[in-house]
Amino acid sequence: MDFKAELDKRVEEIEGIIRYFLPEEKGYQKTVLEAVNYSVLGGGKRLRPMLMSETYKLFNGQDGAINYFMAAIELVHTYSLVHDDLECMDNDEFRRGRKTTHAVYGEGMAVLAGDALLNCAVEIAASAFDETSNPNAVVKSMRILFNKSGIYGMLGGQVADVVCESKDSEVMDKDMIMFIHENKTAALLQASLMIGGLLGGATEVAVRTLERIGYNIGIAFQIQDDILDVTSTFEELGKPIGSDERNNKMTFVSLYGLEEAKKEVERLSIDAINLLHTLPGDNEFLEELLRSLINRRK
Amino acid sequence: MDFKAELDKRVEEIEGIIRYFLPEEKGYQKTVLEAVNYSVLGGGKRLRPMLMSETYKLFNGQDGAINYFMAAIELVHTYSLVHDDLECMDNDEFRRGRKTTHAVYGEGMAVLAGDALLNCAVEIAASAFDETSNPNAVVKSMRILFNKSGIYGMLGGQVADVVCESKDSEVMDKDMIMFIHENKTAALLQASLMIGGLLGGATEVAVRTLERIGYNIGIAFQIQDDILDVTSTFEELGKPIGSDERNNKMTFVSLYGLEEAKKEVERLSIDAINLLHTLPGDNEFLEELLRSLINRRK
Repeated sequence: MDFKAELDKRVEEIEGIIRYFLPEEKGYQKTVLEAVNYSVLGGGKRLRPMLMSETYKLFNGQDGAINYFMAAIELVHTYSLVHDDLECMDNDEFRRGRKTTHAVYGEGMAVLAGDALLNCAVEIAASAFDETSNPNAVVKSMRILFNKSGIYGMLGGQVADVVCESKDSEVMDKDMIMFIHENKTAALLQASLMIGGLLGGATEVAVRTLERIGYNIGIAFQIQDDILDVTSTFEELGKPIGSDERNNKMTFVSLYGLEEAKKEVERLSIDAINLLHTLPGDNEFLEELLRSLINRRK
Repeated sequence: MDFKAELDKRVEEIEGIIRYFLPEEKGYQKTVLEAVNYSVLGGGKRLRPMLMSETYKLFNGQDGAINYFMAAIELVHTYSLVHDDLECMDNDEFRRGRKTTHAVYGEGMAVLAGDALLNCAVEIAASAFDETSNPNAVVKSMRILFNKSGIYGMLGGQVADVVCESKDSEVMDKDMIMFIHENKTAALLQASLMIGGLLGGATEVAVRTLERIGYNIGIAFQIQDDILDVTSTFEELGKPIGSDERNNKMTFVSLYGLEEAKKEVERLSIDAINLLHTLPGDNEFLEELLRSLINRRK
């Protein structure tokens, strides 16, 4: 399998699905619609919809609702980036090599664009009832998506992260770092896998296994992020490096050192692959995708 | 009927329902949970859940899902206030006689509290499937709520409002003012009435009538807001008056004058009452509530 070629093909397919659900840029509210589309069409890796779609394929899914949730989860992810980048948060001017939403549209409009993205995600997910033969799975998928993105998921992790940065970093221990990684990053990856499974027809037990895989991948992904912030370059990463150290931010790397962090990424990833092998079905690309998270450079 | 006593009784009931759904203030994300509860428990009029509940009673509703949507719509309304008050938006330091969320918790945490409120609203609405005998009505209610709060509803109106304020006010004409009022204010009141009707068992035709009533009430309510900004006092209103003029904001009052604005409020309200009389059922309190919107002082 030519992984890179297969990856590109899938990214292109996902771009098409996402574009289908984006608003037309017209009307008195045009500015926010432009900001929404600018934010979404920023060339992301589309990792979340891809994990969802590949898990769905693993279970031989046949439910049209999957496209809705692929778009919805990418919009939820994008809203979190737009708000994280705000001046009053991380104050990042660049992401993926281009200006962030608030840098282009201003702070107020970026707040509204993030709100619009989250609200659109809900509308898209709620429209999935039109194209499903299993409304029960759609209800469960909605609950997973917005539970994993909310105060006991992604948003809870972001809050803990903000609170830590504003205080003396000595308040931060391993439990808190794990809480932040588990919620800020892993929760939405868990949702990707779980919803892909659910809409694909996975059993409750299999959905729990997918949740565990998502946890491992999420923690590994975030530790890798911390590693790249130390070892990469602006050109490679498309955003300024060294920001964690500049912001005096405690990370897995600053706590345990670079070598230990790298080992942990590998351990978590191998664990995830082993869990994947306990599931029925076979998806070589999904396995390769999970492995690629160990060695990613951006 | 002692309207004031009946009103107080209902507000108390609604407070109980809302409190039931609010998060416990604990965990690493405690700060945002405090900010969420502070924002919601600020002594609002609870107009939206009240309109929803009274419309539901008008149709003799028997569906437990109503409580979920009453809480959800109040959280959506609260999120919009928290984000509207931000420094990067209206920069309001007071609301209902006390400090706004960003004035207490800071700009970043207020953005996150607003996000949390919107996300919680989705989670609560999606939990309504647990307590309904009519999942189809819950699906429709979700779609109405998040359509009316999104880019083609409340948020779209807020964006148009922000765009107007940032430009020369000459770009603003009557169409644009009506667009702003229709979306920023009327949309969520429409959702209140429509969802109350839907969960109460109203026909499609009756739901459309409720949408029209919501339009009239919403426009009347917003014009009344503009009127009070000119005619009220800080003590009466619980927030600074004259802010529209200070911000050089074009309103219905500045465009047509105070007398014409007052007449329009009355015309719209009478129209709404007449539409209400075309519906089956009888709810004296609801009628009184709609009438009270004409003469409200805060």
